Amino acid sequence: MTGRPSVSVAEQLARRQREISVSEFFLKNRHLLGFDNPRRALLTTVKEAVDNSLDACEEAGVPPEISVDITQLAERRFRIEVTDNGPGVVRAQIPKIFAKLLYGSKFHRLRMSRGQQGIGISAAGMYGQLTTGNPTRILSRVAHARQAHHIEVHVDTRRNAPAILKDVESEWRPSFPSLQSPGELVLYPHGTSVAIEMEAAYQRGRLSVDEYLRQCLIANPHLQLHYRITLAGKGDEANGEAAPPVTGEWISVARRSDVLPPLPREIKPHPHGVELGLLMQMLRDTEARTLRAALAQDFSRVSPATALAICERAGLDPKASPARIANREVEALFRALGETKLMRPPTDCLSPIGESLLMQGLQQEVKADFCTAVTRDPTVYRGNPFQVEAGLAWARPGEDETAATEEPVRVLRFANRVPLLYMAGGCAITRAIAGINWKTYGLAQPRGALPIGPAVILVHIASVWVPFTSESKEAIAHYPEMLREITFAVQECGRRLAAHLSRRRRQAEVERKRTYIETYIPHLALGLRQILNLTEREEQRAAAGLRKLLERTHLNT
Amino acid sequence: MTGRPSVSVAEQLARRQREISVSEFFLKNRHLLGFDNPRRALLTTVKEAVDNSLDACEEAGVPPEISVDITQLAERRFRIEVTDNGPGVVRAQIPKIFAKLLYGSKFHRLRMSRGQQGIGISAAGMYGQLTTGNPTRILSRVAHARQAHHIEVHVDTRRNAPAILKDVESEWRPSFPSLQSPGELVLYPHGTSVAIEMEAAYQRGRLSVDEYLRQCLIANPHLQLHYRITLAGKGDEANGEAAPPVTGEWISVARRSDVLPPLPREIKPHPHGVELGLLMQMLRDTEARTLRAALAQDFSRVSPATALAICERAGLDPKASPARIANREVEALFRALGETKLMRPPTDCLSPIGESLLMQGLQQEVKADFCTAVTRDPTVYRGNPFQVEAGLAWARPGEDETAATEEPVRVLRFANRVPLLYMAGGCAITRAIAGINWKTYGLAQPRGALPIGPAVILVHIASVWVPFTSESKEAIAHYPEMLREITFAVQECGRRLAAHLSRRRRQAEVERKRTYIETYIPHLALGLRQILNLTEREEQRAAAGLRKLLERTHLNT
Repeated sequence: MTGRPSVSVAEQLARRQREISVSEFFLKNRHLLGFDNPRRALLTTVKEAVDNSLDACEEAGVPPEISVDITQLAERRFRIEVTDNGPGVVRAQIPKIFAKLLYGSKFHRLRMSRGQQGIGISAAGMYGQLTTGNPTRILSRVAHARQAHHIEVHVDTRRNAPAILKDVESEWRPSFPSLQSPGELVLYPHGTSVAIEMEAAYQRGRLSVDEYLRQCLIANPHLQLHYRITLAGKGDEANGEAAPPVTGEWISVARRSDVLPPLPREIKPHPHGVELGLLMQMLRDTEARTLRAALAQDFSRVSPATALAICERAGLDPKASPARIANREVEALFRALGETKLMRPPTDCLSPIGESLLMQGLQQEVKADFCTAVTRDPTVYRGNPFQVEAGLAWARPGEDETAATEEPVRVLRFANRVPLLYMAGGCAITRAIAGINWKTYGLAQPRGALPIGPAVILVHIASVWVPFTSESKEAIAHYPEMLREITFAVQECGRRLAAHLSRRRRQAEVERKRTYIETYIPHLALGLRQILNLTEREEQRAAAGLRKLLERTHLNT
Repeated sequence: MTGRPSVSVAEQLARRQREISVSEFFLKNRHLLGFDNPRRALLTTVKEAVDNSLDACEEAGVPPEISVDITQLAERRFRIEVTDNGPGVVRAQIPKIFAKLLYGSKFHRLRMSRGQQGIGISAAGMYGQLTTGNPTRILSRVAHARQAHHIEVHVDTRRNAPAILKDVESEWRPSFPSLQSPGELVLYPHGTSVAIEMEAAYQRGRLSVDEYLRQCLIANPHLQLHYRITLAGKGDEANGEAAPPVTGEWISVARRSDVLPPLPREIKPHPHGVELGLLMQMLRDTEARTLRAALAQDFSRVSPATALAICERAGLDPKASPARIANREVEALFRALGETKLMRPPTDCLSPIGESLLMQGLQQEVKADFCTAVTRDPTVYRGNPFQVEAGLAWARPGEDETAATEEPVRVLRFANRVPLLYMAGGCAITRAIAGINWKTYGLAQPRGALPIGPAVILVHIASVWVPFTSESKEAIAHYPEMLREITFAVQECGRRLAAHLSRRRRQAEVERKRTYIETYIPHLALGLRQILNLTEREEQRAAAGLRKLLERTHLNT
């Protein structure tokens, strides 16, 4: 055992203390952001870029048209370029948006959007920089501008700040393949194009970019998409050099719906979802001059009259300056807020896909014998409005190869119209579906697991703030309110499926019996003819009579 | 469809862009840090405080003595106070260490320690502040100081910086219950005490503070621990007021080992674990004047001679200024580093628990019929050395109520001597154990799940950088190298268990036969006596002879 440490131990420790920049933190922990392996890195990058493009287009009221162009440069090196027809980004904001983690417009407001953290696209660029040393290249043109901006940036990870390597005016060249005149190109007057080079891997399948884009089209029927992947030839890999790339064909998908989803409204925090410490901070930061005004202005569902009643209940002066209220008084206010009945938060901040578009989307996934969808009413967790939708498609027997009858159902998960591919096991959606008793609805189900059957179940959660289990935003945390809503939505689909399956079983039974009768009645009639010595006409009459009789008795049992 | 957006859309978007402080980010996403419900908040706080205390004591070479004092103040409000006999914290560092996220001494060096992110204790204080409005209180005295510092801090979440509410000199009062003279107190000349008030819940069981502390003692036999929990009386809850607290008794546990684990050494990055982008940054940041010196000084396992060889292989001038090397040249250097054979990283940066202390610890958990442990040799992932240990204890039949024979085995997970309680399903340790074919070792095992049996399996991963699946550090990410090492360690335990179980089965068989013989031989002998008309002595001789004969034939089959 060592004795009393000299004072220098504490001082030595003190000298080593240092600030950790958020970039350094996520660079070392890049698996938290979805960059733990080369295949996932490719998907995460496409996902972050496409999500940003969709958000920007919708915010500007532009029907989104997006191209995703992936090129394999060497065995493990890819270039990903995503271009949109969105409103563009003003020059001054480009470096921070694309090369600073925790920077953005979506974190500080309560409104449904795909992005919410201000991390994604900068993290993708940072991963590219880590694995290839190359910067992120952005080309952007705002409407009515003479020129586009061409900017290249690194993340200065020590400071979590952009380092600008190139900043020039340039022509706006990005264009999309024309859907009307094949071979021609369409040039939009504005938009943004981002290109990143990184160590990556491409592989088809359930966790691929292809799957992500296909599901993206289900949840975003207003998206017009162009996708191209150019893989290096296989032949020359032995020499360490990739063969000249084999240019892929553009795959273009026209939008299914010309209607943009209504732009969700921004809301204020609801008093019942605000914690004590946050209330204290809101009162310190408010622009209102009186407590009453602060309550009415900064919260949703608090009218000036309600604000007055709350102040009285808390024993506080409604004209008091909000910043000067002591902590103990805020506690009284907090209790008064909790005890006051208030309308639930407004829900026009949400934009569900809707039952009919959901069913359309599902029918593109699977040749369905039966298809249904449910959009639940919005509800609230921790003060945040959210809304759950579910759809279920049952494959037509023998017609759909993708839907196996002996396998668990396939689950498509979405949050704010973004497909979630990884981490299915840790997601509240999977847990809710596995937690339902599917035997009630006529499906086999191993204990605590997904049910068995040729079905696709789709769940979409729309919220002003989706609680993800990690920064990579691939699984939803297990908040009880969310689990409950998902369960209710899927159960409703399950009940409808059960009705369909039992109808189908009855039809099959009828069919089976009819066939049986059709087969045996002539033999019976022939037998009767011999026994009773009937004429041919009598035999026919007997057969017809038997058929009627048997149909009546059998089919109604 | 809307037409061309006016320029103002891009500008409107630009105006809303803002920096998000890392505190704001984690406040909103507090489930990522382990503060998603009141019960877990209590555990996470104790855990972060105790981990910090253990790290500090070990670093100072002081055998750790720690007290954990939890007091229920109201139904949902708790005060958590953790005190250690560590080296103390110098005054200037206290605010940042306890009220700034991403600040610390452990992130930037490659050395095994419990903390690694510089988030934990500040996050606990921030959660306390959010739910009660109260600051974190720190009392700390460094050795040879006249007085202790009493500091109270908030996190200013907008700036992720400490806000100091109180900063005074004070007496150093914290003390521990004496283990020698019950009722007396021991006062150390230095140490740190941190107290946080928060919304929390206390509940016994597998995910409780009690369980965490018990497991902590298994992995830290040099820890001397005092634990007290004071719960509010139940009676007055109806009035909304807690009854006067019922002061709990101190539970004190003396250290099992007087030997401190050897202090792990800090190492430099190994060239084979460094990515291209990081290499570029290291060359920009190095203090060395030449490329050769930079390679030899900043990396582990690169001697000056090797550095020269690497420069030659890359076609670079060893005397070149590291900061001036162009990106393309760094790529050549990167390839040359990859192609050069190097010794694996040094492994004295790790501090395993050791097989004998592991077995001691396991035997405190379960009354063991059989107990074994394996410490594997260190190995490497992404350039980071790590080492896996596993232990297995099989309960004595009928004697241990905690170990049910029909239930899955119990798994104790540790990373750098810290027990992991939550998120077992998402952890590489659980996955590796469930991935082993336990039928080979004589255990039942549902497909893809943990084996069945009255056993406890313990796995400890020691690494200079543990890849956790989230900031709450409760589960280890699925790196293939880690999964493999865990599998090997547990399989070795499994093989030894199989040998033990088959020995036990043979013994049981012998026992069964002996009992059988003992039971029936007298009857046989009596029968013989009647048939052959034997005397009593002859009967006894016959019985003895039969016994010998039967034992010889039966027992050797």
